[in-house]
Amino acid sequence: MRTCKIHFQPDDITIVTEAGQSLLAAAQQAGIIINSVCGGAGTCNKCLIEVDGISEPVQACRFYVERDLMVNVPESSRFFEQKILQEGIALGSCLNPQIAKYFVQLSEPCLDDLRSDTQRLIDAVKEAAGVRRSEDEIAVDTVSDTAGENLRGTIDYDLTIDFTLLPKLPGLLRDNSYTVTALCHGRHIIDLEPGNTTDKKYGLAADIGTTTVVVELVDLTNGKKIAVASQSNPQITFGDDVIGRIDYSRTHKDGLQQLRERITEGINRLIAEICEKSGIDRRYIYELTAVGNSTMQQLLLGIPVESIGQAPYVSTVTSAIDIPAVELGIDISPAGNVYVMPTVAAHVGGDTVAVALSTAMRHSESVNLALDIGTNGELVLGNRDRLLACSTAAGPAFEGARIKQGMRGATGAIERVYIGDDVEVVVIGEGKCVGICGSGLIDAIAELLNVGILDSSGRMLVDDELPASLPPKLRERVVKNKDGLAFILAHSEQSRQDGAIVLTQRDIREAQLAKAAISAGAVVLMRQMRIELADVEHLYLAGAFGNYIRPESARRIGLLPDLPLEKIQFVGNAAASGAREVLICREARQHAQSLAQRIEYVELAGRSEFQTLFSDCMFFPEK
Amino acid sequence: MRTCKIHFQPDDITIVTEAGQSLLAAAQQAGIIINSVCGGAGTCNKCLIEVDGISEPVQACRFYVERDLMVNVPESSRFFEQKILQEGIALGSCLNPQIAKYFVQLSEPCLDDLRSDTQRLIDAVKEAAGVRRSEDEIAVDTVSDTAGENLRGTIDYDLTIDFTLLPKLPGLLRDNSYTVTALCHGRHIIDLEPGNTTDKKYGLAADIGTTTVVVELVDLTNGKKIAVASQSNPQITFGDDVIGRIDYSRTHKDGLQQLRERITEGINRLIAEICEKSGIDRRYIYELTAVGNSTMQQLLLGIPVESIGQAPYVSTVTSAIDIPAVELGIDISPAGNVYVMPTVAAHVGGDTVAVALSTAMRHSESVNLALDIGTNGELVLGNRDRLLACSTAAGPAFEGARIKQGMRGATGAIERVYIGDDVEVVVIGEGKCVGICGSGLIDAIAELLNVGILDSSGRMLVDDELPASLPPKLRERVVKNKDGLAFILAHSEQSRQDGAIVLTQRDIREAQLAKAAISAGAVVLMRQMRIELADVEHLYLAGAFGNYIRPESARRIGLLPDLPLEKIQFVGNAAASGAREVLICREARQHAQSLAQRIEYVELAGRSEFQTLFSDCMFFPEK
Repeated sequence: MRTCKIHFQPDDITIVTEAGQSLLAAAQQAGIIINSVCGGAGTCNKCLIEVDGISEPVQACRFYVERDLMVNVPESSRFFEQKILQEGIALGSCLNPQIAKYFVQLSEPCLDDLRSDTQRLIDAVKEAAGVRRSEDEIAVDTVSDTAGENLRGTIDYDLTIDFTLLPKLPGLLRDNSYTVTALCHGRHIIDLEPGNTTDKKYGLAADIGTTTVVVELVDLTNGKKIAVASQSNPQITFGDDVIGRIDYSRTHKDGLQQLRERITEGINRLIAEICEKSGIDRRYIYELTAVGNSTMQQLLLGIPVESIGQAPYVSTVTSAIDIPAVELGIDISPAGNVYVMPTVAAHVGGDTVAVALSTAMRHSESVNLALDIGTNGELVLGNRDRLLACSTAAGPAFEGARIKQGMRGATGAIERVYIGDDVEVVVIGEGKCVGICGSGLIDAIAELLNVGILDSSGRMLVDDELPASLPPKLRERVVKNKDGLAFILAHSEQSRQDGAIVLTQRDIREAQLAKAAISAGAVVLMRQMRIELADVEHLYLAGAFGNYIRPESARRIGLLPDLPLEKIQFVGNAAASGAREVLICREARQHAQSLAQRIEYVELAGRSEFQTLFSDCMFFPEK
Repeated sequence: MRTCKIHFQPDDITIVTEAGQSLLAAAQQAGIIINSVCGGAGTCNKCLIEVDGISEPVQACRFYVERDLMVNVPESSRFFEQKILQEGIALGSCLNPQIAKYFVQLSEPCLDDLRSDTQRLIDAVKEAAGVRRSEDEIAVDTVSDTAGENLRGTIDYDLTIDFTLLPKLPGLLRDNSYTVTALCHGRHIIDLEPGNTTDKKYGLAADIGTTTVVVELVDLTNGKKIAVASQSNPQITFGDDVIGRIDYSRTHKDGLQQLRERITEGINRLIAEICEKSGIDRRYIYELTAVGNSTMQQLLLGIPVESIGQAPYVSTVTSAIDIPAVELGIDISPAGNVYVMPTVAAHVGGDTVAVALSTAMRHSESVNLALDIGTNGELVLGNRDRLLACSTAAGPAFEGARIKQGMRGATGAIERVYIGDDVEVVVIGEGKCVGICGSGLIDAIAELLNVGILDSSGRMLVDDELPASLPPKLRERVVKNKDGLAFILAHSEQSRQDGAIVLTQRDIREAQLAKAAISAGAVVLMRQMRIELADVEHLYLAGAFGNYIRPESARRIGLLPDLPLEKIQFVGNAAASGAREVLICREARQHAQSLAQRIEYVELAGRSEFQTLFSDCMFFPEK
């Protein structure tokens, strides 16, 4: 095996890699995550890296290492610096984690008390839990109504002890004067620690997005968030979106295994970072709750995902799953548990359940609509009586994919566009602009509609077609180049397009497809529910993207329905909120399971009305 | 490492072993189990082996291999040929194993039916189980009342699926046209097999005695026993009785681990034998139920046993345990389960629960007494209202230990003694006699009492003390040798005692200690229960030994209380019966758990009355 040395700048990292590897893989090895929208197919041109001695930037996915190299990875090709939404909405006041600790001082066995070690322990923990209940109003023995396919569930008639503890139980009790702290997962004793360690009890809430992974460390004694860490989903080198990863798992030997290992390693890196940051010992972290779309969740669990990617699109499991952390290779306490959110359907995952959970739609009498726009757009509509959900293949346009100069919301991206006499743009990081992200795209289209450069069919007007009143500076920005008609948003030396950041006619069409899918989905749900738009009390906008757009622009282009702005509410990273909620509140798990079962999945592909509505929704609303 | 070759006769087995090993260990390596009552201490003289070139037999435990050897292992030094009680009492008609199979043909997913693979499977299995219930009156959804510390219990609200199945579920369904057989352990789906395999469903019932291990193969489709295999408990080389093994585990590094491995290997050998015999593929064996005393059960589970051997004598766990067979290394289906019987206390184990279970004492209005005599004697007294149990340190006298020429019930043992004008003996195997076993010992003492050679204090009379009417041939048999007073039972060239099989005064004392402990225990229980002997409706005799004694002799010496013979009932190997009962009937597990919790343990060591009673009971009853 021949090896080559590669030095990455400006990171100042050197790695040794096998010759013949792609630069994309080598960068991954160095811990540098590179954009690769097309999944390494060489078509998206977003993984450009500068190689010492080569005048033009190369595509990292197509450049194979054959000698020692010095390379420079520009910000624009990285995921690393992008804005990651870590915050979710505030949670309710529930503090009753599935993980509980009880400090117990057992009486020693004697002739009058010959209970077995196990019975002695269980009796004491029951008593401790009972005392605690009456004092703190914490219902530790609420009968679980978790139903269906919940796996390795806790046993709800009485306390049980994990078999793996039995071999160490007699020694542990006798070596510690029968004074120990019992760690419970629900009604199951999963570990024992000498002495009193009840003040050390932590959990992790993980939001596993297709693009980004966020992990929060929570102190389970008070529910407070202690630290957060995030990074790009390291599976990204195997495909930028869900479909790309499903394809990878199908077409590569051990593909599923690779994807599983990649996300596990990624989560473990974040845990290491978070422990380092907070000074918390990982052996006191007893649970990780994970929320993602169905594909992300199944990949984490090592369950094949092919059926999610092929009609008629079904997942393998929809119920919540509890599994020992060691079985998944997650680096927390060896006795720790991983809880994975229940899902509704193949394309309505745990993240959507989390949105429904954290917006408390299940309690409301009035009808609300929740919208989570990512690579797909998931919608939930309903109230306490009925809840409907669908998933629309919105495509990754709003994440910068398939847009000529699109990029994610990272440094250098145009995120706001205002058009008056001329164009004003706001760039993330306030430096030079290198592309346009989703919120900038929506702004730009809304403004172009407002000034009449776009008509309601989405056609870009030229020359005589343009309104006579159009300011000359704007008129000059409409150009025709090798890609067809385009509008110049900004001039930039950083741009690879002749020094300009442009929005092309083709970009507009991509945005139209995406917004049409989402709005047609909303109409289908409302029809199914037999309600009018006016009946919708609140529109909740969830997810990373939803929280950066200007709602008036989104409404202008018809991405959001025509509701008064005061009805539109940002709910932040609802997936992360949901993960935290189930981490600190066991009742929230019951609610999540019940939601996952109650939400009716509406399959759009099966409806002829959807195609008609989709065509109608391609148009932009008249002003 | 220097090695030596050892050839064993008459087995014709050659092994290569490390120099310096004991012959006892080498024989074990060859699969030949040698008697070693003293646990290799060199004191019992029961492990004699003839070594080529050495005139006298050597003690296998004290003879260390330093060169290649030809050895001969006589029958009298083997456990191999001993009588092992495999049969238990007949069982009731319950056939509802914890292990169930359901053949299901699932509908394929389509746009109108987008259930997840898991939900689809669970729904189908529920339906199959439901149909079967109504047709066959099999209550698959009886709510379990299993309480307390039952581990990794099945979940009683609904069907669940084992997490380990999820990764293979999508492929298995699609590769087999959605036609599979689901294997359930209670309400938990633990495996899936392609096609219809419902006719292949087997289980094993294991009786793990301190001395002997019996494994039965049962066809779970009809409850019929197909094959049986048995052998000595291979832990025997580490100590002949419970206390010996506890000591070994305490005093040897990895002692517990060694004991655990030894019994696991032993069981696996029996499984191999039974599969070979019956032609059944072990992948269709889905469960093994194990019954033994608390020490045997904890050793199987790898749980330390020290606390069982030290005052105040408590065990680590008393509840039933379900654990995946792979975790214990038991060679059945990789999805298989091991169920271990619940116990009452450190010295009233799963074997005693099995006795109570299979004698159905819990149903009876009248009071019954069950007696299981082994190394210890366990007693259960009671009826449907109240059950009491105790354990008496009867010692291994009735198993041949501490008796000068004692041996187990193997070929060559005197098992019956009749005394008229002279002595008549019955020898197991009808060959030459080499020693005396427990039933022979009891017979001999009873007959010596009857003819007046023993007085009621247990003293052997000599010369003038002997009754004048004593036949001369008997009178000649009372001798005085280097061991003190003795009675010659038989003359034998096989004997190592000057050509005679004798019963010594010391042997009588040992038997008195053993029988006194048991009968004092019975009195304590009756007093506790506030009943008289006359109130006892039945006396159940359980266990290997109990089934070979003559009840009239046992009653004559006071080992059994003075009840009419028609009240005495042999119940055979109740431990094996109990293991089979819980194997084929899930309700029996609930009964066992409930019995284990209901039976009140009476600790004799804590009672001053016991010492008095024990002294009283040393006397033999007057004729």
